[in-house]
Amino acid sequence: MALKRLGVLTGGGDAPGLNAVIRAIVKSAANSHIECVGIEDSFDGLLEPGLTRILTPRDVTGILRLGGTILGTINRGDPFEHPVSSGGTHDYSERVVDTFRKMRLDALIVIGGDGTLAIAHKFFLRGIPVVGVPKTIDNDLVGTANCFGFDTAVDFATQAIDRLHTTAEAHKRILVVEVMGRYAGWIALYAGTAGGADAVLIPEIPFDIGIVAQKLRERDRWGAKFSIVVVAEGAFPRGGKMEVLEAAQPGIVERLGGIGARVCEALAVATGKETRSVVLGHLQRGGAPTSFDRVLATRLGGKAVELAKQGQFGMMAASAPPDIVARRLEEIVGRIKTVPRDHDLLLTAKALGITFGD
Amino acid sequence: MALKRLGVLTGGGDAPGLNAVIRAIVKSAANSHIECVGIEDSFDGLLEPGLTRILTPRDVTGILRLGGTILGTINRGDPFEHPVSSGGTHDYSERVVDTFRKMRLDALIVIGGDGTLAIAHKFFLRGIPVVGVPKTIDNDLVGTANCFGFDTAVDFATQAIDRLHTTAEAHKRILVVEVMGRYAGWIALYAGTAGGADAVLIPEIPFDIGIVAQKLRERDRWGAKFSIVVVAEGAFPRGGKMEVLEAAQPGIVERLGGIGARVCEALAVATGKETRSVVLGHLQRGGAPTSFDRVLATRLGGKAVELAKQGQFGMMAASAPPDIVARRLEEIVGRIKTVPRDHDLLLTAKALGITFGD
Amino acid sequence: MALKRLGVLTGGGDAPGLNAVIRAIVKSAANSHIECVGIEDSFDGLLEPGLTRILTPRDVTGILRLGGTILGTINRGDPFEHPVSSGGTHDYSERVVDTFRKMRLDALIVIGGDGTLAIAHKFFLRGIPVVGVPKTIDNDLVGTANCFGFDTAVDFATQAIDRLHTTAEAHKRILVVEVMGRYAGWIALYAGTAGGADAVLIPEIPFDIGIVAQKLRERDRWGAKFSIVVVAEGAFPRGGKMEVLEAAQPGIVERLGGIGARVCEALAVATGKETRSVVLGHLQRGGAPTSFDRVLATRLGGKAVELAKQGQFGMMAASAPPDIVARRLEEIVGRIKTVPRDHDLLLTAKALGITFGD
Amino acid sequence: MALKRLGVLTGGGDAPGLNAVIRAIVKSAANSHIECVGIEDSFDGLLEPGLTRILTPRDVTGILRLGGTILGTINRGDPFEHPVSSGGTHDYSERVVDTFRKMRLDALIVIGGDGTLAIAHKFFLRGIPVVGVPKTIDNDLVGTANCFGFDTAVDFATQAIDRLHTTAEAHKRILVVEVMGRYAGWIALYAGTAGGADAVLIPEIPFDIGIVAQKLRERDRWGAKFSIVVVAEGAFPRGGKMEVLEAAQPGIVERLGGIGARVCEALAVATGKETRSVVLGHLQRGGAPTSFDRVLATRLGGKAVELAKQGQFGMMAASAPPDIVARRLEEIVGRIKTVPRDHDLLLTAKALGITFGD
Repeated sequence: MALKRLGVLTGGGDAPGLNAVIRAIVKSAANSHIECVGIEDSFDGLLEPGLTRILTPRDVTGILRLGGTILGTINRGDPFEHPVSSGGTHDYSERVVDTFRKMRLDALIVIGGDGTLAIAHKFFLRGIPVVGVPKTIDNDLVGTANCFGFDTAVDFATQAIDRLHTTAEAHKRILVVEVMGRYAGWIALYAGTAGGADAVLIPEIPFDIGIVAQKLRERDRWGAKFSIVVVAEGAFPRGGKMEVLEAAQPGIVERLGGIGARVCEALAVATGKETRSVVLGHLQRGGAPTSFDRVLATRLGGKAVELAKQGQFGMMAASAPPDIVARRLEEIVGRIKTVPRDHDLLLTAKALGITFGD
Repeated sequence: MALKRLGVLTGGGDAPGLNAVIRAIVKSAANSHIECVGIEDSFDGLLEPGLTRILTPRDVTGILRLGGTILGTINRGDPFEHPVSSGGTHDYSERVVDTFRKMRLDALIVIGGDGTLAIAHKFFLRGIPVVGVPKTIDNDLVGTANCFGFDTAVDFATQAIDRLHTTAEAHKRILVVEVMGRYAGWIALYAGTAGGADAVLIPEIPFDIGIVAQKLRERDRWGAKFSIVVVAEGAFPRGGKMEVLEAAQPGIVERLGGIGARVCEALAVATGKETRSVVLGHLQRGGAPTSFDRVLATRLGGKAVELAKQGQFGMMAASAPPDIVARRLEEIVGRIKTVPRDHDLLLTAKALGITFGD
Repeated sequence: MALKRLGVLTGGGDAPGLNAVIRAIVKSAANSHIECVGIEDSFDGLLEPGLTRILTPRDVTGILRLGGTILGTINRGDPFEHPVSSGGTHDYSERVVDTFRKMRLDALIVIGGDGTLAIAHKFFLRGIPVVGVPKTIDNDLVGTANCFGFDTAVDFATQAIDRLHTTAEAHKRILVVEVMGRYAGWIALYAGTAGGADAVLIPEIPFDIGIVAQKLRERDRWGAKFSIVVVAEGAFPRGGKMEVLEAAQPGIVERLGGIGARVCEALAVATGKETRSVVLGHLQRGGAPTSFDRVLATRLGGKAVELAKQGQFGMMAASAPPDIVARRLEEIVGRIKTVPRDHDLLLTAKALGITFGD
Repeated sequence: MALKRLGVLTGGGDAPGLNAVIRAIVKSAANSHIECVGIEDSFDGLLEPGLTRILTPRDVTGILRLGGTILGTINRGDPFEHPVSSGGTHDYSERVVDTFRKMRLDALIVIGGDGTLAIAHKFFLRGIPVVGVPKTIDNDLVGTANCFGFDTAVDFATQAIDRLHTTAEAHKRILVVEVMGRYAGWIALYAGTAGGADAVLIPEIPFDIGIVAQKLRERDRWGAKFSIVVVAEGAFPRGGKMEVLEAAQPGIVERLGGIGARVCEALAVATGKETRSVVLGHLQRGGAPTSFDRVLATRLGGKAVELAKQGQFGMMAASAPPDIVARRLEEIVGRIKTVPRDHDLLLTAKALGITFGD
């Protein structure tokens, strides 16, 4: 059966490159005489008709370089367990399947992270012809070598570290930068290396703040009076506690919200130096995608349309350099890609003198 | 008396362009056969000999585009009231004068903000031939139309707002950005206008959070489901309190450190929308200066050497577009330049629909 | 008579910030209940009805940070002397006045350079209620301290020089950069200073290539084996000729198109070093405006609406830091602002060791 | 035998990331108690003693983010066929081997492109313990999935295309951008896709200018009145000629230097539209490396030291995502990696509607 009408949705947190994927899908579909239907706000857009619109090449003009997603996105929208106003959840999946049928769509391309792709896989098992496109700024999805958004986030974090270097040096301070990475330390590892950080703390390696402090004191003695510490938001101290911090001031840990602020305060206590912290937060999500991410997003979008045309459903487009390949959705659901202890960049970073607090 | 030896120091918080000033001073002095002596860590470098070094054109090669200051800087170093380890302060000013004499300096160029320039002025009254160069990222110094560092800070804040726009739109959220500006709202006003913010809260105009919330709800009804709010770190609510926040959760105000976080939470309560906040903090201080700041810093540095050569001491180089002029240090000490209520940009911003919460 | 309908057009070469002006006009007009009509392709859009469209705040959403102009622009469109297909020109000015009347416009805001504003002034004398907004990337308009677009162009050129520095140094080459500036050397002077160039050649100072070569040889002896030369497109050699080039190879001057290529070749001959040249060309016109230009453009746009509301026609909004003021159009027509020989930045640049070839 | 002294040199055209490789080598060597000797100007630095210097971690502080190479580089320095002043060449290879021995180096890391690595391989065959690090902005080296410098060049070219978009649109012009790529079209393909170009001309696919012109006319009819054409410097017309250009004006081809200018002129003739061209040239080589290139360069540098420590000579560090691996130098010498006709990005680009003139 020839593919005539294709639905597209984006789910989960936004990532630079989403619009580039949408553009690639719409333009390559149009050139194959396939109509594209944009579905708003992830699967919420399939809870009832009317939240969709036809997307033509004209509609995607100029969006290649825009962050965000013209389709909107939500984080919480699992139709199988949809939050309801009375509290609790309700299974609306049947309604989604119904809407999909009523809209006479021949396939559905779902662009999203592990959560969104898991939902997509469940709908595939319910008979919806689904193709996935992986998305994660954190780079922690299995099955794909890299994801659009990651390079842009790393590039921004690296530029932020560059900026902080000059001010840290001028004031002889320790600057602590908290970056994204709840379960995996890829952004911290890459941006820390690219920015020339002195310590990088990641979820995969519980840190000993004393070891970090010792490294920074060595730098001081060596003559480098300032230091940069990059902390992934999911990093945590070995044993779960930073004694130096607890001892300094009871109750301070609770008052200091994030791990960046805690590491900052603990290093002030442990080194006696001035410290400051910065949380990059949502700045890492926005902005124009880098050329790398635009190209990757475009390749994945093009591949997704190819897969849909070939009837390869239940699959996702994935990066396996130098190629773009197809992977089964079920293989990637529920798993996560963390930084292996023997990753060459981790070893090189250590060889360069970066401490991971272990 | 011909000028033969010139001391240079930088004081207060660092600002992009400090190195460009130093470079301009060193290079133009060298071409006039004047020797430059760099003094480290503000006036601390004059507490005893040995914290100085000759600066030749070779030493300033490549620093034009670097943030920070190669001379180092400190915030707290008033030699007239120097903090001592036993607590309290001590007047070390005589020692500074002595060191200056012993080093056989003919003049001292002091690059700094109101605090540092006030100290410089006191030393001028004590007989040191001082020339000032004004420095403030916040743009709140009187006597000069603008200061290097401000344009770079505004540019970074504007780019940050640009980045947040795409993610705010994708998620239909309110994004609150806290920028520098303890006493004056220049950065917030400029970056807010340049970034297309919907609300700008500045110290000069105590805000009513209800008025801000109303404006954002109007945007919602109009179809713009997201908003950007820029808050200067020194902004505060009319009457000093945000009732909506106090009412929502007793004690929450104390837990939320900065004004950005408080505005963020208050707007969440008042609008029912998802909100997120970002604090730009030290990111605004670092980085390569913009071309605007490099040119301004170079002009001020060149003028400072001219003033020193002409024996115009007790003066500072200042910007009075299209010219660089001399101003008396005493005129600017202890004063601050805030945003006037009838500033054309403030009026234009209001005409464009930006609310200031008043 | 109350202002109800306002026409807006943009003329001449595009400049970053044009859209920011349009946005400011449309939004502030809308908040004063004034309808805005966008006129396409400069005065050509008034040759006949139908080339216009209503502009609402929704139409200008997101254009603040876009280069170019959503209204389009042309360089050649003087309706008083319009080129016709048979060759020659025709006076279509009456038709423009007619269309203006038929469209029931109460005022016309013209955003453009000296050519476009001269036309605007002629229409003002013919009874059209005109307000001008000055625009020139070259910064050579009189009556306004600065123009949007200039800062963006200088910033790009400065970044280009930064890039060329590293490659010049690695290869020990002379790099020649040709920047815009047909009649005035502002971009060359500013970007050359901000980028740390060694020589800057501008139309205001006919250069002697031998003096430039001598300076670069001195750098070589000093140990700086590379150099950067910035050349305004309108720069020219003293006496109109570079003998060294003519002598080296007859006819070569004609083959080398621009002044940048000629200076490059002449310096290769005169210094015996490897030289390379780059022409920045149209790269300087495009791109997102800097925050400086966005703010300036917004202020000018806001002021233009104010002037129209007050019935101050025949005027233009102008920058006179720290204020935005009104200037009579007739005062600025037919004049040009070049770099004065005693401009402080010129003198400072020379004091720093930059040669202008004189 | 333990590795005690390590020589490092960089050869060929400079590429962003060279300094990051040098830094990684020096820092990881130092942490393994290996002394690093920097050799200046490629193999020229081994023609006689004295052109070298010890490199310590202090010497590489801050160079991570600098373009260029602190060791200098030359393009022409094959010691086996060294150009001599009398004309012709001379074999100085023995002298290089001698100097290497006299300096008591235990290994030599050579960072360079195919030319430099071919020389390195010849010295390996002569007994020098060589390790290679691949370098090419053009991305045309075999044996490694990607090379540092390429991402930075693509990113700059993409930003240039972004800038040109706005000005092309405002003036309804065709903008032609000439990018690097003498033998391979990788930069053109990547930047063209990332920048949203309408036509991409590469050496691998001889183009028919008529087909390109037809595509651009279609865009015109569709309503997109402007177009962007990206041309690799090594692109050429099918059959070697552009008849439309020859016919328009005899002799014009010779006068128009590069392929970008020729395509620009031919499209003006063939479409009747205004066209402009820009040559990015050396702008693509300089500047701070992107975070991607800094990480890649650091990984390759770290791996090279590992290979030297393990005595794996005659090898080069190479990228085989997600790993960094070792490849035999002999496998890559004399070969080139061009864009395959069935590369997924080429196919996706075509599916999106980009023409390659075939």
